[in-house]
Amino acid sequence: MQSPVKVGICGLGTVGGGSLRLLLENADEIARRAGASIQVVRVATRRPREAKEAVSPDSGIALGNDPFAVVKDAEIQVVVETMGGFDPAFDVVRQALANGKHVVTANKALIAERGNELFEVAEAHGTTLAYESSVAGGIPIIKTLREGLAANRIEWLAGIINGTGNFILTEMSAGGRTFEDVLAQAQELGYAEADPGFDVEGTDAAHKLTIMASIAFGIPLQFSATWTEGIGTLEPEDLAYAEELGYRIKHLGIARRTERGVELRVHPTLISKRWLLSEVAGVDNAIVVKGHAVGTTLYQGPGAGADATASAVVADIIDIARRLRAGAARPLAPSLHYHGEARDLPMVSMDDIESECYLRIPVLDRMGVMARITRVLEQHAISIEAVIQKEVHGGSVPIVLLTHAAPESSMNAAIAELGSVPDVVGPISRVRVAPFPAGE
Amino acid sequence: MQSPVKVGICGLGTVGGGSLRLLLENADEIARRAGASIQVVRVATRRPREAKEAVSPDSGIALGNDPFAVVKDAEIQVVVETMGGFDPAFDVVRQALANGKHVVTANKALIAERGNELFEVAEAHGTTLAYESSVAGGIPIIKTLREGLAANRIEWLAGIINGTGNFILTEMSAGGRTFEDVLAQAQELGYAEADPGFDVEGTDAAHKLTIMASIAFGIPLQFSATWTEGIGTLEPEDLAYAEELGYRIKHLGIARRTERGVELRVHPTLISKRWLLSEVAGVDNAIVVKGHAVGTTLYQGPGAGADATASAVVADIIDIARRLRAGAARPLAPSLHYHGEARDLPMVSMDDIESECYLRIPVLDRMGVMARITRVLEQHAISIEAVIQKEVHGGSVPIVLLTHAAPESSMNAAIAELGSVPDVVGPISRVRVAPFPAGE
Repeated sequence: MQSPVKVGICGLGTVGGGSLRLLLENADEIARRAGASIQVVRVATRRPREAKEAVSPDSGIALGNDPFAVVKDAEIQVVVETMGGFDPAFDVVRQALANGKHVVTANKALIAERGNELFEVAEAHGTTLAYESSVAGGIPIIKTLREGLAANRIEWLAGIINGTGNFILTEMSAGGRTFEDVLAQAQELGYAEADPGFDVEGTDAAHKLTIMASIAFGIPLQFSATWTEGIGTLEPEDLAYAEELGYRIKHLGIARRTERGVELRVHPTLISKRWLLSEVAGVDNAIVVKGHAVGTTLYQGPGAGADATASAVVADIIDIARRLRAGAARPLAPSLHYHGEARDLPMVSMDDIESECYLRIPVLDRMGVMARITRVLEQHAISIEAVIQKEVHGGSVPIVLLTHAAPESSMNAAIAELGSVPDVVGPISRVRVAPFPAGE
Repeated sequence: MQSPVKVGICGLGTVGGGSLRLLLENADEIARRAGASIQVVRVATRRPREAKEAVSPDSGIALGNDPFAVVKDAEIQVVVETMGGFDPAFDVVRQALANGKHVVTANKALIAERGNELFEVAEAHGTTLAYESSVAGGIPIIKTLREGLAANRIEWLAGIINGTGNFILTEMSAGGRTFEDVLAQAQELGYAEADPGFDVEGTDAAHKLTIMASIAFGIPLQFSATWTEGIGTLEPEDLAYAEELGYRIKHLGIARRTERGVELRVHPTLISKRWLLSEVAGVDNAIVVKGHAVGTTLYQGPGAGADATASAVVADIIDIARRLRAGAARPLAPSLHYHGEARDLPMVSMDDIESECYLRIPVLDRMGVMARITRVLEQHAISIEAVIQKEVHGGSVPIVLLTHAAPESSMNAAIAELGSVPDVVGPISRVRVAPFPAGE
């Protein structure tokens, strides 16, 4: 057995606390896997007093509130950053890497928005910057993309990568309940934050999608190029109509490479019920990856939670311990995508994306209304694949359409024009269909 | 960019040919991922003349029929073994490792049955023996168990790991067709071999299960300790009754660690329809892994086919190229499970396993028959959870039961005794229920 690997932890919240607990509780098995024992020697937390239960005085772990004391500790080889946010996390990670320490972070915002700078620092110092836990909790999707599927040209990937959003859509679909109603329940259960915007508006998913796309396509991290749309405007009836048409609605992150470039988008999406992905329910995450050689593979599991996320944090630490044990002068796999320069692929603007769409148009049930609606669509070269029109309730009735593929710009123009048709009496609901070819 | 990594391939069948094609066709992307170009310099095949299309004279690849010429080639750093079988594959792999070459093999039988010896040779010479493609085709389940989930104590894993068998059960279930009928179709489609025994009797799945269990639990490879039962005795009505009871029948490989030891078994299994695993259809593979920290995660995709398997072979080659580039003196992750000794865990004999069971008992529809059946079960302390009894057709009628958990030995004794009850007029069908706790 090698000499122990010395670890410092910055941030002792859900993920940091869970990781410390896992390292202590499963120390023997982890040492066998890593080829060395993993020894936490210093912890920084904003509330050192409250951490005394997790970090007992006889544990030999130094406890303080300054993350930079961890970064400066000459003994420490691996710094775990589980503080979240940018300040001081960015400086903590950068300084740790520059000091020759390896870093494990669970911070998806930091990697997605500032990762390009940090990977440069890691590269310059031969240090490892690992972030498995930043995407899809306990599912080892980063390792899968970077190593397991490395022989492939990745064509697309699509994921349910926000557990809160998936819980809400699952409950709305199963019980016919409203978004607001289920959100309140999710907050009670602790699945959703008091400020749920980050989850339900798609920012969290966009961070994760940005990271996966960079690995998959070999492009720089481009969070700002990701189109993001939330689930707050969906009504229970949209989920019911989708079901009737053979689909489920999921909040998907989609990264896709076409001849025109790379699409990055997070939005509610119709997925055919023939796809296993459509069956992923509750707070679980799942990602489907299409590689040109392997075909489509799916990875499903808990996308959040202290223990599941700690599983990924500690896997990263074990990887680093194995690197130290093997005496490798640099990380084996590239930290992000390639050894060397990223690809400079064009990004496709949302206006240029083509989608089949689900449209729910609330109209007054008057003679000729369907003809007036379809005429507008026809003028924008949008053709219709399926229609559902139910019986009247009140004077207003929804017309539900599934269109053939049309450019986003045409669809936007058509929806704007439909909004000014006198028969249309409420906001039009539009949900894009997943762009997965049928045979895959 | 580093100097090219020199590769030799032994065996140019489906997997070897697919791997060569992938290396040539996606060379640029693979070089970026690996940090070095991968150069195939020598190929050995039983039919060199027929290989001239894949290996053109101006490719610079030496073509011959002697795999030991590959093993002895001083220039070659990585030997790909895609011959299959034991002879000469075992000697090829052993000599390559002993000559200081890294080996990538797709040979599940070789790893499962002779792996313990081969990993020792690799360990002694600091060489890598990689076998991702030996289990579940393109799904990177070996890397996931060995690295991605390394922080966990694995409690159990269960997999649909034979595509042929899953295709047959899917078709039997969907169309009410017999095993023999679907098998003939699978043979026509090329999904099943002319001699299908290896697939449908479970040997192939047992090989894969043996390998996964060794990594998951840190035990030596113990193929001979794996209980194996095929799918040839299932009738279409068994799949229909299972569906009625809320289950699907899949040919599962199950590895499970309990307080008494390790269970290794391959048999037809009832899986609750609430599990995503029950939805995996056709020739796909899927594995569910329960780790104490991460919870349950699922990995699904193509388990066979030239391109999917090649994806895994080439991923292993890329891992080795990355190791060479980083100057690591030994493999980072242990080849099998631990750095150091395997665990000596007791193996649980099949007789001691407890299962809930599905029983289909063909009886004559006579007064009191149900009482006589249940009395036998009661005498063996087997209690009943659910019963289906349909109307008579002919004089014989099936009694279908779902039992509570009972030891295998009691169930065997009860089934033997039921066979001698005069009302019972045909063989009793018994299918075990998957031992996954409900809450997981």
